[in-house]
Amino acid sequence: MKDSLADRIFAGDANAVARAISKVEDGTSDAADLMKQVFSRTGRALIVGITGAPGAGKSSLVDKLAAHYRSKGERVGIIAVDPSSPFSGGAILGDRIRMQTLSLDKGVFIRSMATRGNLGGLARASVEAVAILDAAGFDKIIVETVGVGQDEIEIAKTADVCVVVLVPGMGDDVQTMKAGIMEIGDVLVINKADRDGVLRTEKELEALLTLSARGDEGQPPIVKTVAIENKGIEELAVAIQESREFQRNAPASHDRCKAIARWRILELLRERLLAETLNGDSTAAKLDQMAAEVASKQRDPYSAVEELLK
Amino acid sequence: MKDSLADRIFAGDANAVARAISKVEDGTSDAADLMKQVFSRTGRALIVGITGAPGAGKSSLVDKLAAHYRSKGERVGIIAVDPSSPFSGGAILGDRIRMQTLSLDKGVFIRSMATRGNLGGLARASVEAVAILDAAGFDKIIVETVGVGQDEIEIAKTADVCVVVLVPGMGDDVQTMKAGIMEIGDVLVINKADRDGVLRTEKELEALLTLSARGDEGQPPIVKTVAIENKGIEELAVAIQESREFQRNAPASHDRCKAIARWRILELLRERLLAETLNGDSTAAKLDQMAAEVASKQRDPYSAVEELLK
Repeated sequence: MKDSLADRIFAGDANAVARAISKVEDGTSDAADLMKQVFSRTGRALIVGITGAPGAGKSSLVDKLAAHYRSKGERVGIIAVDPSSPFSGGAILGDRIRMQTLSLDKGVFIRSMATRGNLGGLARASVEAVAILDAAGFDKIIVETVGVGQDEIEIAKTADVCVVVLVPGMGDDVQTMKAGIMEIGDVLVINKADRDGVLRTEKELEALLTLSARGDEGQPPIVKTVAIENKGIEELAVAIQESREFQRNAPASHDRCKAIARWRILELLRERLLAETLNGDSTAAKLDQMAAEVASKQRDPYSAVEELLK
Repeated sequence: MKDSLADRIFAGDANAVARAISKVEDGTSDAADLMKQVFSRTGRALIVGITGAPGAGKSSLVDKLAAHYRSKGERVGIIAVDPSSPFSGGAILGDRIRMQTLSLDKGVFIRSMATRGNLGGLARASVEAVAILDAAGFDKIIVETVGVGQDEIEIAKTADVCVVVLVPGMGDDVQTMKAGIMEIGDVLVINKADRDGVLRTEKELEALLTLSARGDEGQPPIVKTVAIENKGIEELAVAIQESREFQRNAPASHDRCKAIARWRILELLRERLLAETLNGDSTAAKLDQMAAEVASKQRDPYSAVEELLK
């Protein structure tokens, strides 16, 4: 008898991992059973979320951090979440190039995930991909979000340690944005720290951190890096590890895990409810007709939804 | 008898508009009835979506474009969607400053919208806020999305004309991102066009446009602006107007309206289904307990959802 897909995942088989991720992306009917088995084997990996503004050099930082972990003999999984390509719906060029170089290393698994279909579910699928890598025995899992929006922030928040990447001298609206992004950062990185203005950015960050009330969690450390020159990567890895240790002993840790669990249940529930309601050819046809009626103002979206709910 | 809220909206009363937007944000029980009335009065305004990377100068561009429309005697509504502040959940500092200056003009209505609660619905609420402004007789409605993620792209796509703002000389990951963002742009703006590298950025954009197959829709125009110096704003307004005219006559226009209508129905349906399922104190307590069980790995999220669906 052949091994089941779950068994092959638990054995660390990269092909099985890739197939399982495709299943959760597509929401196939056997994905639920698979994920139930996978979930029981999770909780061993350190999951690092990396987010920040476009142009901050996240990809380089992820590559260098992955190489650092590899040099310690650890297996590394990378999930690059890219919702910025709504139509093409595939991996972006940059990731394809990265895959060619990094994927020669059997100890690294890279997957780029983009939006598919109109039921959403990218956030849910990316979190499940992380669980699959965790169950497959990867020691470190890095989740890189390319966009900077609501969903991307949610995804970054599900990591054990969330790293927010900034660069010196970005515009004013980035500064105001910082206030929001910073609240989710367990570790703050100033990348491209060989540029002018790094001291000013650091002072601004410190001032913002003093203003924000983080309570029990303490102030997140600020790490300066020059990713393309491999500078500051070891310091970043140490800061990530320390943040994990700190959280393990912090009283707020359980609340954080519970909030993540709650979010996962709600994301899954939202998708299931929609899928069940829209199940069947007659509903699809009805939705199509309703959309045409709403578009031509013969009907409003609220009454359309009320009819679908019946 | 006092006028109803809907009547006061149709009369263009700013206080009524503000109250109605709060209702759709909070999802109050009377919001559905209100929106049914509002929806029948929409379709007159020109809705302009403005999106792009942080630091591209979107806010300045929106302010100057609004001032341009005002100089023609038109009433302007601005919805600034800001999902980047997940915890504080309010208007960001920059918008508060803008409100103080622009809101002295009775012909301008500005509202900043951020994520609230765990049911999501920011995209749905912002699109309904636009409908309220439309019904209130605003001639031009500008929807500015601060983030660059999946939801933000969805919101920008619901506009009549979607403007994507870029700046010269951004990093490589912005270049790859362009390919995605550009597919939704009806008008492309290179802001800060007094900077070095503007010619290179323009050439790159033109090359990318040649690569992307846009079919019937034609190539979007590229407009160069220096928003803070008020340069290129009139050209932008002309490009927006021309894009609207072009679309009205394009065969794909109906498909686009239908896709937007379909998205609106699905967003609303998703939220309603979740709200109905979670309705009641016992479900809230159950969800809370399940989240604790999933957090401590006693249970997986899939079986939790299956139990909630029963």
